[in-house]
Amino acid sequence: MTVNLIKLALPSGSKYDIRIGSGVNSKLGDVIAGITDYRSLALIADSTVSKLYSEKVSQILEESGFAVAQFAFPAGESSKSLAQMEELFGALAEYRFARDSVIVALGGGVTGDLAGFVASTYMRGVPFVQVPTTLLSMIDSSVGGKNGVNVAGIKNLVGNFKQPIYVSADTDVLNTLPELEWKCGFAEMAKSAVIDSREFAAWMFEAAPKLVEHDTDTLVEAITKTVEFKARVVVADERESSRRKCLNYGHTLGHAIEAVSQNPKVLHGIAVAEGMRFAAFLANDIIGTEPGFVEAQDELLSSLGIQRLGRKFDVDQIMERMLHDKKSNGRTISFVLPKAPGDWVVQELDPSVVREHVEKWMLG
Amino acid sequence: MTVNLIKLALPSGSKYDIRIGSGVNSKLGDVIAGITDYRSLALIADSTVSKLYSEKVSQILEESGFAVAQFAFPAGESSKSLAQMEELFGALAEYRFARDSVIVALGGGVTGDLAGFVASTYMRGVPFVQVPTTLLSMIDSSVGGKNGVNVAGIKNLVGNFKQPIYVSADTDVLNTLPELEWKCGFAEMAKSAVIDSREFAAWMFEAAPKLVEHDTDTLVEAITKTVEFKARVVVADERESSRRKCLNYGHTLGHAIEAVSQNPKVLHGIAVAEGMRFAAFLANDIIGTEPGFVEAQDELLSSLGIQRLGRKFDVDQIMERMLHDKKSNGRTISFVLPKAPGDWVVQELDPSVVREHVEKWMLG
Repeated sequence: MTVNLIKLALPSGSKYDIRIGSGVNSKLGDVIAGITDYRSLALIADSTVSKLYSEKVSQILEESGFAVAQFAFPAGESSKSLAQMEELFGALAEYRFARDSVIVALGGGVTGDLAGFVASTYMRGVPFVQVPTTLLSMIDSSVGGKNGVNVAGIKNLVGNFKQPIYVSADTDVLNTLPELEWKCGFAEMAKSAVIDSREFAAWMFEAAPKLVEHDTDTLVEAITKTVEFKARVVVADERESSRRKCLNYGHTLGHAIEAVSQNPKVLHGIAVAEGMRFAAFLANDIIGTEPGFVEAQDELLSSLGIQRLGRKFDVDQIMERMLHDKKSNGRTISFVLPKAPGDWVVQELDPSVVREHVEKWMLG
Repeated sequence: MTVNLIKLALPSGSKYDIRIGSGVNSKLGDVIAGITDYRSLALIADSTVSKLYSEKVSQILEESGFAVAQFAFPAGESSKSLAQMEELFGALAEYRFARDSVIVALGGGVTGDLAGFVASTYMRGVPFVQVPTTLLSMIDSSVGGKNGVNVAGIKNLVGNFKQPIYVSADTDVLNTLPELEWKCGFAEMAKSAVIDSREFAAWMFEAAPKLVEHDTDTLVEAITKTVEFKARVVVADERESSRRKCLNYGHTLGHAIEAVSQNPKVLHGIAVAEGMRFAAFLANDIIGTEPGFVEAQDELLSSLGIQRLGRKFDVDQIMERMLHDKKSNGRTISFVLPKAPGDWVVQELDPSVVREHVEKWMLG
């Protein structure tokens, strides 16, 4: 079985390891004990993950000499709120957690975002360990340090940056992951591959059949490649400015679809995959793409089990969301437009141009 | 009239100017226009300060080409809450404030703490200008970048660090400041002088009679010296670790008195002055102080109009607060103990030793 170790060193001075592989959570206590003198841990998980893994992870941590308190919050995006933070702060204070405590986030993106924000602000900051339990959070929220909660109906309106001291990505916990969540992770991998390089895109194309079968070694390799790609981008540009914008590929329409969709809501990764298809369609029309690029990306996503969404959304609502996304200036809409694998530009587009393409896209 | 300019450069890379003097707020718009391309400002003040100064400051800003939206929150410590933050976030979002906006905090410590935390987390951080309107906030919250709100009844349980891009300390606005708030500022100056050096302490001793008469030039000089002292400490130690602990002189008992006192609550500066007297008494007993030090500090505080508190508090409550302060490890109590002006140590004391001295202190 492959276990990979990525050593991240950020320009700000933060350094941490990301360990990826089957069974790596069994080393969690020893690793944390090796990087901090603190011996008091708050293990934060949502109600679903808590039932499955909190007890097991607590035991591992306690065996390494940690005092562990478990905190569970209701599963779901609605827990990314200031009210939920207030509850966690109160619970931490009640347990007399002080600055010499470590917060361990055990879960997916919601848990990482919420617990990361808590860790970055409780007593003005305590150390933070990420134990992602979804494929998407292993590759997406473990690198970059972003956290946040939703306020006034706006996703991640409030948050900041907090680097973990360690990330443990154990592929064993993915056994309990629903099929749709696998696809969300694959979409993020595909996005990274297309943005990164011809080599990574070609590798993903080859690996897709094994990934959809959940082959562990291929999975560890794909997670590693995706994390390394994201790490390269983040190291080059720790605070989101120019280069890091490439990570938003597929996110302009993706975020809008996520926000506008109801019953069922479209999950983040699936929405981003749709956004990638749309961005490629847009790029092809506006700046031109390499022959076969649009089709190859379509095929890559389809071979990962992610088909075109085929759902219709209200174009006014979609436009409103894109125009008033927090990355938008309210006058133009920013898109990452691909020309070929590893070759892309960020372009500010006039809303009327975008609208015309969204309308065409919704037709079919 | 003296106007002083302090140019701060922090190890993290943040740089900003602090301008101190009569009338400096009249340059606010031009200065901000010179350091950022953003043209959209959110002016945050409490209800009291808003009535007195928001309109005037808005005009100054608008004359320099800024679009200004005014936000007011209820005056008082109880506004330092996550609920109040949520309201401000919602209001900012409603005004479509984006990342290209600047938050201007116009007010005292509560406003700086609240608006600073908002600025550090709204859309993961927008630039932040401090326009302090109390003597204490001019010298205390303008340097160091700390912010925070109260959660679960614990002062500043939640917050982080956010450096402003500019601080405008206009002594003219102090005309409307209540007498008790002047004393809070003087206490902070006295604390800084005693911790810093014989020179600063001797200067304060000389300056005290003019300060209590609110002589502008002496005031500008005292603010400048205090800010420069704090800046030296913070530059040497941006994230609170060892050296910065000296800023907590007088705060161990001070915070406890603030927390425990009721009807009326003892204001921060007054509580810190009492804490300084207690710390000197404690130091004299435990490590010994230079002959005449305790008396000289007493005289300095008295000449600034700050007498001994003379109120009795429940010793159990005081001890409980000191033991579970967020700076405490829950087993010992940390004190900054002075030996002479500019000469101090940080010492962890056994609660029983502290209790014995608190009991004696309350007697007399």
